[in-house]
Amino acid sequence: MADSRPIGVFDSGIGGLTVFRAIAERLPRERILYLGDTARVPYGTKSRETVSRYTRESARFLLRRGIKALVVACNTASALALPSLQGELPVPSLGVIEPGAHRACRLSRSGRIGVIGTEATIRSGAYREAIRRTRADAEVAAAACPLFVPLAEEGWAETEVARLVAETYLADFAAREIDTMVLGCTHYPLLKGVIGKVLGPGIRLVDSAEATAAEAADLLGKGGLLADGEGAVEHHFYVTDSSSRFGEVGSRFLGMPLARLEQVDITGDL
Amino acid sequence: MADSRPIGVFDSGIGGLTVFRAIAERLPRERILYLGDTARVPYGTKSRETVSRYTRESARFLLRRGIKALVVACNTASALALPSLQGELPVPSLGVIEPGAHRACRLSRSGRIGVIGTEATIRSGAYREAIRRTRADAEVAAAACPLFVPLAEEGWAETEVARLVAETYLADFAAREIDTMVLGCTHYPLLKGVIGKVLGPGIRLVDSAEATAAEAADLLGKGGLLADGEGAVEHHFYVTDSSSRFGEVGSRFLGMPLARLEQVDITGDL
Repeated sequence: MADSRPIGVFDSGIGGLTVFRAIAERLPRERILYLGDTARVPYGTKSRETVSRYTRESARFLLRRGIKALVVACNTASALALPSLQGELPVPSLGVIEPGAHRACRLSRSGRIGVIGTEATIRSGAYREAIRRTRADAEVAAAACPLFVPLAEEGWAETEVARLVAETYLADFAAREIDTMVLGCTHYPLLKGVIGKVLGPGIRLVDSAEATAAEAADLLGKGGLLADGEGAVEHHFYVTDSSSRFGEVGSRFLGMPLARLEQVDITGDL
Repeated sequence: MADSRPIGVFDSGIGGLTVFRAIAERLPRERILYLGDTARVPYGTKSRETVSRYTRESARFLLRRGIKALVVACNTASALALPSLQGELPVPSLGVIEPGAHRACRLSRSGRIGVIGTEATIRSGAYREAIRRTRADAEVAAAACPLFVPLAEEGWAETEVARLVAETYLADFAAREIDTMVLGCTHYPLLKGVIGKVLGPGIRLVDSAEATAAEAADLLGKGGLLADGEGAVEHHFYVTDSSSRFGEVGSRFLGMPLARLEQVDITGDL
């Protein structure tokens, strides 16, 4: 049994490309349709209701293009929209919260786990709940870090500004004695260097992108949905805004130029 | 002749409240309908096409509520969308670019004028053109400062981070010997302190909010559109996202709580 239909990967914008890359590396035979809702990015400061509406429109767009599974590669959409959407979807789906939470529970010795993310993700409590479901005795310390996203997009990861911002946001974690920190936003792996330096060598960082790619492979395998083609696959990138910014910043995320980039209108796809 | 219809003030989100406040102070008899497109904020990283579509939907929404004039209190929308929209509107309209440019030309002695704003505003060249129309010999130096908006919204205006970011963005202006700087984004007046300190006392800062309020008063006066009621007027705030964030951050901008705040759906208002 082999299934040649593509996998849909959805994000509010550019950050989900870290998840795209991890999936493409782990499952090189799979064709991926990536949708970035760049006309309405960011989701991290918006309400559950608005994020749910946007996520639903995005899922419908990808479903109409024949995907066999949906990966929501945006922490905010995974936290706020996926739980209610999941039951309605005709294909298997996966967010980034559960994989990140599972990996953190596996890596942590003390059970004291930190989580950083956008305002909306942290306010939702989704990571805390997912961690507690896996490890009921875990102690979770969480903080929103709104300036990390613009710092990553500006390419300022290695600056004195990034160090100062990280020190400000992460100061309280030292007292909580965590041994594991979940990077609960797809942009944050770009700041891994400075976050790791500020937290110190005793704390392990969990990058949800890799964890999500591993769980996606598992999900497809169990469902008999893996492709078995040979030769190079053709990925496709859709964005909702016409700006050249996605191509520019996106190539920094992927480390290569983005081919087959197309602008689409998804509003009203309900 | 008196006209009791409200003035419409539109912004991509919260920043336009600085313009709202300036108009409310200068024209205390005027009722204002403020619309913040918080479900799609920010506009500053998006394309001309997308910003134009959003601005048109917002204008239609306010027109259906009977406004007598439209003030586009967002630099990005003023730069990218207003020029093409202006001819279609059945009421007089005004952006923030022209008033800021006019004031800068009046204040500058040397004719060397700086402009800072979002990526989209700076890339559009709208300030440069507006300044040159008023003062053909002006030399304009412009720079995008993407991190200023999140710094202002985080309430980090008085921090060491804000100082470092301002020093980074503004370093090149010293060599250009400007004597006037346009704060070409409605968020930037919140960072006036640190921007002024980094630029030094020889450079005057132009806050478009006040300049826009003065031109709005002029526009209404010439058109016989001023109100003459007595007693307190009731302003109304509309937002497109349900988040409590507008109320929270907005009260920091206005220095008082926002009464009569309502969520609306404006998509498809074309």
